[in-house]
Amino acid sequence: MDFRYDETTERLRERLLAFMAERIHPAEPVFADQSAARVDRWGAPPVVAELQAEARRHGLWNLFLPGEHGAGLTNLQYAPLAEITGWSPELAPVALNCAAPDTGNMELLALFGTPEQRDRWLTPLLDGRIRSAFAMTEPAVASSDATNIATRIERDGDEYVVNGRKWFVTGALDPRCAVFVVMGRTDPDAPRHRQQSQLLVPRDTPGVTLRRGLRTFGYDDGDHGGHAEIDFVDVRVPVGNLIGAEGDGFAISQARLGPGRVHHCMRLVGMAERAVELMCRRVADRHAFGGPLATQGVIRDWIAEARVRLEQARLLVLKTAWLMDTVGNRAAHTEIQAIKIAVPETVQWVIDRAVQAHGAAGVSQDTPLARLWVKARALRLADGPDEVHRQSLARRELRRHQPVRPAARG
Amino acid sequence: MDFRYDETTERLRERLLAFMAERIHPAEPVFADQSAARVDRWGAPPVVAELQAEARRHGLWNLFLPGEHGAGLTNLQYAPLAEITGWSPELAPVALNCAAPDTGNMELLALFGTPEQRDRWLTPLLDGRIRSAFAMTEPAVASSDATNIATRIERDGDEYVVNGRKWFVTGALDPRCAVFVVMGRTDPDAPRHRQQSQLLVPRDTPGVTLRRGLRTFGYDDGDHGGHAEIDFVDVRVPVGNLIGAEGDGFAISQARLGPGRVHHCMRLVGMAERAVELMCRRVADRHAFGGPLATQGVIRDWIAEARVRLEQARLLVLKTAWLMDTVGNRAAHTEIQAIKIAVPETVQWVIDRAVQAHGAAGVSQDTPLARLWVKARALRLADGPDEVHRQSLARRELRRHQPVRPAARG
Amino acid sequence: MDFRYDETTERLRERLLAFMAERIHPAEPVFADQSAARVDRWGAPPVVAELQAEARRHGLWNLFLPGEHGAGLTNLQYAPLAEITGWSPELAPVALNCAAPDTGNMELLALFGTPEQRDRWLTPLLDGRIRSAFAMTEPAVASSDATNIATRIERDGDEYVVNGRKWFVTGALDPRCAVFVVMGRTDPDAPRHRQQSQLLVPRDTPGVTLRRGLRTFGYDDGDHGGHAEIDFVDVRVPVGNLIGAEGDGFAISQARLGPGRVHHCMRLVGMAERAVELMCRRVADRHAFGGPLATQGVIRDWIAEARVRLEQARLLVLKTAWLMDTVGNRAAHTEIQAIKIAVPETVQWVIDRAVQAHGAAGVSQDTPLARLWVKARALRLADGPDEVHRQSLARRELRRHQPVRPAARG
Amino acid sequence: MDFRYDETTERLRERLLAFMAERIHPAEPVFADQSAARVDRWGAPPVVAELQAEARRHGLWNLFLPGEHGAGLTNLQYAPLAEITGWSPELAPVALNCAAPDTGNMELLALFGTPEQRDRWLTPLLDGRIRSAFAMTEPAVASSDATNIATRIERDGDEYVVNGRKWFVTGALDPRCAVFVVMGRTDPDAPRHRQQSQLLVPRDTPGVTLRRGLRTFGYDDGDHGGHAEIDFVDVRVPVGNLIGAEGDGFAISQARLGPGRVHHCMRLVGMAERAVELMCRRVADRHAFGGPLATQGVIRDWIAEARVRLEQARLLVLKTAWLMDTVGNRAAHTEIQAIKIAVPETVQWVIDRAVQAHGAAGVSQDTPLARLWVKARALRLADGPDEVHRQSLARRELRRHQPVRPAARG
Repeated sequence: MDFRYDETTERLRERLLAFMAERIHPAEPVFADQSAARVDRWGAPPVVAELQAEARRHGLWNLFLPGEHGAGLTNLQYAPLAEITGWSPELAPVALNCAAPDTGNMELLALFGTPEQRDRWLTPLLDGRIRSAFAMTEPAVASSDATNIATRIERDGDEYVVNGRKWFVTGALDPRCAVFVVMGRTDPDAPRHRQQSQLLVPRDTPGVTLRRGLRTFGYDDGDHGGHAEIDFVDVRVPVGNLIGAEGDGFAISQARLGPGRVHHCMRLVGMAERAVELMCRRVADRHAFGGPLATQGVIRDWIAEARVRLEQARLLVLKTAWLMDTVGNRAAHTEIQAIKIAVPETVQWVIDRAVQAHGAAGVSQDTPLARLWVKARALRLADGPDEVHRQSLARRELRRHQPVRPAARG
Repeated sequence: MDFRYDETTERLRERLLAFMAERIHPAEPVFADQSAARVDRWGAPPVVAELQAEARRHGLWNLFLPGEHGAGLTNLQYAPLAEITGWSPELAPVALNCAAPDTGNMELLALFGTPEQRDRWLTPLLDGRIRSAFAMTEPAVASSDATNIATRIERDGDEYVVNGRKWFVTGALDPRCAVFVVMGRTDPDAPRHRQQSQLLVPRDTPGVTLRRGLRTFGYDDGDHGGHAEIDFVDVRVPVGNLIGAEGDGFAISQARLGPGRVHHCMRLVGMAERAVELMCRRVADRHAFGGPLATQGVIRDWIAEARVRLEQARLLVLKTAWLMDTVGNRAAHTEIQAIKIAVPETVQWVIDRAVQAHGAAGVSQDTPLARLWVKARALRLADGPDEVHRQSLARRELRRHQPVRPAARG
Repeated sequence: MDFRYDETTERLRERLLAFMAERIHPAEPVFADQSAARVDRWGAPPVVAELQAEARRHGLWNLFLPGEHGAGLTNLQYAPLAEITGWSPELAPVALNCAAPDTGNMELLALFGTPEQRDRWLTPLLDGRIRSAFAMTEPAVASSDATNIATRIERDGDEYVVNGRKWFVTGALDPRCAVFVVMGRTDPDAPRHRQQSQLLVPRDTPGVTLRRGLRTFGYDDGDHGGHAEIDFVDVRVPVGNLIGAEGDGFAISQARLGPGRVHHCMRLVGMAERAVELMCRRVADRHAFGGPLATQGVIRDWIAEARVRLEQARLLVLKTAWLMDTVGNRAAHTEIQAIKIAVPETVQWVIDRAVQAHGAAGVSQDTPLARLWVKARALRLADGPDEVHRQSLARRELRRHQPVRPAARG
Repeated sequence: MDFRYDETTERLRERLLAFMAERIHPAEPVFADQSAARVDRWGAPPVVAELQAEARRHGLWNLFLPGEHGAGLTNLQYAPLAEITGWSPELAPVALNCAAPDTGNMELLALFGTPEQRDRWLTPLLDGRIRSAFAMTEPAVASSDATNIATRIERDGDEYVVNGRKWFVTGALDPRCAVFVVMGRTDPDAPRHRQQSQLLVPRDTPGVTLRRGLRTFGYDDGDHGGHAEIDFVDVRVPVGNLIGAEGDGFAISQARLGPGRVHHCMRLVGMAERAVELMCRRVADRHAFGGPLATQGVIRDWIAEARVRLEQARLLVLKTAWLMDTVGNRAAHTEIQAIKIAVPETVQWVIDRAVQAHGAAGVSQDTPLARLWVKARALRLADGPDEVHRQSLARRELRRHQPVRPAARG
C-alpha cells in the first residue's frame, strides 16, 4: 500500500498547476466579461479557443483518454489532474479538451467506434475542432430506470429512424456541437437490458429540432452550449451510425459512465478545494463583532469538517480509479457507485458552507461559489439520482452478507 | 390555550384561498411568458398590475399593515394569510401589496414618518402606485454587525449628504421604485447603537448610481426589480427626509425587522407546503423500477419528515406572532430570532427534497422549485446570517440559566 | 388562537414546580444512594413511597387521568405538568402516580374495564398500592407489525389459556407489580385488525415465568422494576379477565397509545429542558483555552439549536393534546404520530449535546444525562420504531394530495 | 499509488481471520457467561487468559508494537489487523496483548523508558503477566486543555511526591493492573507545554486510593478493569520512576497518542463492519408488513450510507498510518487529528442504525451493538472532545491558506 502519486502524475501535476496559475486563473475574468458581452447566447467566448491552443502546446491535451488515441494515462494517473481542473471548471476542462460530455463520447468512439465513425467524429473531437452531446434523459419518464426510455430507433432499410424527445442534452446548443449520441429503444421485446441501442445523429439531420435551453437553478450555461430539449421526428441516419450492435446500448452506457464518474468526482473535489480556499481567505479578511470571522468557532468547525470530509472523498475516488485500472470497471462497480453517492453530496456541503461564509457575496456572481454549488447539486441528479444508486449498492451489500455464514440465519 | 384561527382570519383565509385558485395560480404561466418576452429587464410584467386591481376589489389589500393605514389585522391574524401568499411568492404578495421590501418601508413610515413623509411616500405606496427599496447591506463590510456600516450621512445646513456603496438593494432596479430608505452613519463617535440613522432618498436624486443587478444562484429577479448595487456620491436630500431622529437608525431597524421576519417565515411555510404538494403529486405520477415513486420508502421518509418539520415551524411562527401582539416585539425577541433561525433552514430542506423527487425537472424552469429553493437559501443570509442569530440567542439562553439557581454553580 | 395556559394549568404548574424544588430534586441523591444500597435488585427504593404520600397530600395525584377516576384534567392541561415531571423522570412521575406503564393500564381499565376489573385492579392502581405492566412486544417477531404477534390466547370453557413469550415488559420485575395486560391472538382467521385481544393476567398465575431482566444499553432499570422477558406456558385466567371483547386488542391498543404518547413526549421535553439547564451551567463554570466553555461558538450553536428545536417540539405536542381534546384521538392521528416521530429524536439530540458539553462526566453516573439519553433513545424504538410511523404518516400525506386537484395528475 | 496490502499484512490477516473464526467468536458467549457469574467485579473472566495463550502460540502477539520489542510491524501493516480485532473488541485486542491502555504504555516504555523501567514494567507487560493504566484526565478540570491539569508531582530528595485526583483511569480496577502512568505538573512556572511530566506509580503505593468505578452509559466495564477514580495523597515513588525528563510530559503524551489513535480508529472500523454484518443479517431474517425488512428502502439507504462512509473512513486511517511510517507522527498531525474527528462519529452513526434495525434487541444485551455504540460514543470524548480537535485542525487549515497567495488578502 502506497499513497504517493507516481512520477508521471507528479510531473503532469506540476505542469498543470503552472498552467492553472499562469493561464487559466487569469483568464477567468476575461471569460466572464466575454460571456456577458457575447452576441451568440450559446457560443463559447473566444478565450476558450486561445486556451486550448496553449494547453495543446504545453502537452496538456486529451489527458483523460487512455490508450493510443489519447495521452495514455491510467485512471489513477488522470484523477489528480482532473481534480486540478476542477478549480476552474468553466475553463480548465474545456481548455484541455477534457470536458464532459465530449470525454465520454470520445471514449465510447475509441472503444466501440468503427474506423469510419472514428474518422468522421473521433478525430475532430480529439482535435477540439467540433463538440458533441449525449442524448439520454427524457422529460416524460424517470430515465434513471433505463427500461423507461421511450425514444424509438427503428431500422428501415439502410437507415435508422429516430423518434422521441430528449432533454438536458448538455452542450447541444453550442454552434460547434456537430453530433449527438442518442440512446433509444431498438427492440422493446428484448430482455430488459438488451432493448436499447446508441446511435450517432449529426446535429443538422432533418427532423432534429432544438426546442429550448433548460436552466439549472438560474443558470442557462449558455457559455458551454447550454442544456437542450430536443425533438427527434422521423430523423433518418445510415445504419453505419449505430455504435456497437443493436441492444448494446445499456452495456455501452455502463462502460461510458465508469470513467466519467471518476472524472466528475475528482473535478468536484477540486471545486470543493477551491471553495475551501476562498472560504479560508474570506474569513481571514472579514471582520465582525470584534475580530476576523476566522476566529469564530462555528466557522472553524465548518473548515475542519470540510477538510476531513474532502480527504476521505478524494481517497475513495483514487481507490476507485486504481480498482478500475487493476480489476476493471465491472469489478469496481460498488466503488464507482460509492463515489457517485458520496462525492457530490460532500462537495455540495463544503461549497454551501463557503457560500454562507461569504454572506450575500456567496450567492452572487462575484464569486464562483454559487455556480459551483449548482454544478454539485445537479450532479446528485445527473446520471441517476443518489437514491437509485444507494438502493442498488445496498442490494449488493445485503447479498454479500448472505451466503458467507449461513449459520447466522438459523 | 387554543389553536383555532379566529373568525376574521378564517373569513379572510377563505377569501384569499379562492383568490389564489381563481386568479393567482392561473396567472403564473402568464407571468412567466410575459417575463420572458418583456423588453425592460427590470420591470414587472403587466399581469401584476391587473392582479393588484383585482385583489383590491376583493378586499385583499395591505393586509400586512396593522392600524388605521392598513387592514388593521394583528400579526397573528395576518400570519396565516401570509402563508397562503407563499404558495405563489412571485405573484401573490405583490398582488396584495404585501411584498417585501415595501411592507417594511410602509410600516416604518406609518410608525415613524412625519405627516409630510407619509403624504409623499406612504400614500402612494399604500396605493401601489410606487415601489420602494431598503439600502442597508454593504459589499465592503460584514453588515450583520451594524457597527460596520460605513456609508456616511452628514448634515450640511438644511441637507444631509450621503456617501457610500450599498448592494443587494432588492427592487431598486424596478422603474416604478421611487425611493430608498438608506441606513448610514451620522455620528461615528456616538455609542455603538446610536451611530446610525435612516434617510429617505428619492431614487432620481443626483449622485445616485445604480451600478448593476446582483444575482442569486443565477437568478437576477428582474421581474421584481432585481437586487441592485448602488453608489451614493455626494447625494443631497433635505433634512426633513430623516426618519425619526439622528441615531435612531438601529432602533428603527429592529422595529422594522420583527414583523418582517414573521411575514417572511409564514410565506416560507407556504412555499414549503407548495413544494410538498408538488412532490406528492409528482411521486404519485412518476414510475420507476416497477411502481410509482410514491411507494419508495426513502421518498415517503422525506414526505413524513417534511410534514413533521413544517407543522412545528408553523406553530413557532404563529406563537411568535401572538407574542408580538400580546407582549410586544421587544419581549418576543427570542422567538423572533428563533423563527429566523429555524424556518428558512427547514423550508430549504423541504424544497430540496421536492427538487430531488422531480429529478432534472426539479432544477429546471419547468417547476417553481428551483427558484423557491433559492429564495429560502438567500433568507439564511438576508438580514444577518443564521450564525449571528444563533450566537445571540444562545447568549440570552445562557444568561437565563445563570442567576436563577446560583447554588448549582458551587 | 391563544398560547396562554389556562388558570387550572397555571395553578397546578405552580404547585408542581414547588413540589419539584422542595421534594423531588432533593430526593434524587437519596434515590441514587438507596438504589445502590438496596438488596432487592428489582424493588423501588423506599424514598419513592414517601414521595408518593407527600404528592397525594399536595393534591398532585393521578393528574394524568381524565374523568371521574382521576384528576379530571384535559390532555392540554396535563401536558405542561407532564413536562415538569420530565425534569426528574426517575422520581417525579412515579411520585405523582403518573408513571408509565401504569398510566396506560389505568386509562384502559377506566375506559374499557368491567366493574369487577376496576374494583380488583384499577382501584389499587389509583391508590398506588400495586403496579402493573403491559406485555406486548415479542422477541421472535417484528412487533411493530401487530399482525406478527404470535402469543396465543385461546378460550377453553370459562378460561383463557395463554401461550407465548413477551419481552421488554417494563416494570414487571418489581415485586409490587401485580398484573399484566397481555396482548395476544385470539383468532388468527379474523381480519387483520380483529385478530388480537387484551387480557389481564395476574403476575402470580401458574405458568408465568419471569426469565430475566433486559438491559437498555447498560441500564437494567432495576429501580423501576426492570424490563422483563416472560414466558407464558398454559397460563389460565377466567374469561372475565378479557378487556373489551375478543378482537378488540388492536383498537384498545390504539386508544391506549394516544395519550401515552403525549405524556411521553411532554416528559421528554422536560428531560431536554433539564439537559439544557445542566449544559448551560456546566459551560459557564468550566474553563479551557483561556475562558469559560460558554464563550465558545460551537457550544453556543448547540444551545441555540436546542432552544429552537425544543420550542417547536413543545408546541406540536401541545397542539396534539388540544386536538385530542377537541376532535378526538382518531382525528388527531397524524399529529400523534408526528410527535412520536419528532420529539424523541429532537430530545435525544439535545441530551447528546449536553453529554458532550460535560466531557467524561456526561457519560458517567455523576450527571443524569447518560440515563436520560438512553430513555430518549429507547423511545425511538418503543411502541414501534420511528420508521414505521414515518411510512404511515407519509401514506396519509400522499393521500391528502391526491383527490383535491385531480387535474394535476393528467 | 497502490491500494493493495503487502504480503506480510495479507499473511497475518489470514492467520488472524482464522483465529477470530475459530477461537474468538466462539469464546464470546463464554466470556459473557463468565462475566455474569464472576465473583470479582473487576477481574477478567478466565477465558481471556486461555485465549492469550493460544494467540501467542499462533504468533499473534504484540502485533501493535514496532521495533525489536514487539512484532516489528509498521503502522500500515498493523492497521488492517487492528480492524479485524475490532469485530470482537471485548476479546480480540486483549487476547493478542494489543489492548489499550497497555499498548500506549508499552510504546511509551519502549521509546522513553530506562533499562530499569523496561525490566520492571515493559517485560511483564509484553508477556501479558501484568496490566497497566494511564492516569491523565481529572474530574475537576477540562483536561482537554493540558495546561489545566492540576495534579502535582513534586521532587523531594530522591523521591517524587504525587497529589491529585484522576478519573476515567481505564483498567485500573483490574487486580492484575500493577502500575499507573501518571501525568502531573512538575513546574507550574515553565512554559505552557513544559509544565507536565509522566511518572510510573505502582498501584500498591501507599497514598493511592481507588475511590470507585465510573460508568459509561450504564456499563461499568468491570470485565476490563473498569474506569477508576483515584486519589493520590502524598504518594511517594523514587525519582527513577520518571519517564523521560521533567517537563517532557506533554511531548511524550503526543507521541503516545498518534499510534493509539490509529489503533482505536481501525478497531472502530472493524466494530462498524460487524454492525453492518449484523444489520444485514437481521433485516434479511426479520419480516414486517409483508416482506423482510431488507426490502424496505429506508433500511437499504442506511446500509448504503454505512458502506460508503466506512470505505472512506478506512482509507483515511490507512493513509494516516502510511504517513506516520513515512514522514513521522509529527508531520502526520493533521491526518491523525482528522481520523480522531471522523471515525468515531461515522462508526457511532453506523452502529446506531444497526441498533435501530434490530428494534428492542438492539439496545439489549442480546446483541453486542449497544455496548459497541457506547464505545464509539465515549471515544468522541476520550483523549479530547471532537470540538477541541476540530478547532485545532481548522487553525492549521486557515494558516495553510494564508501565506501562499498573499495577493488575495488585499
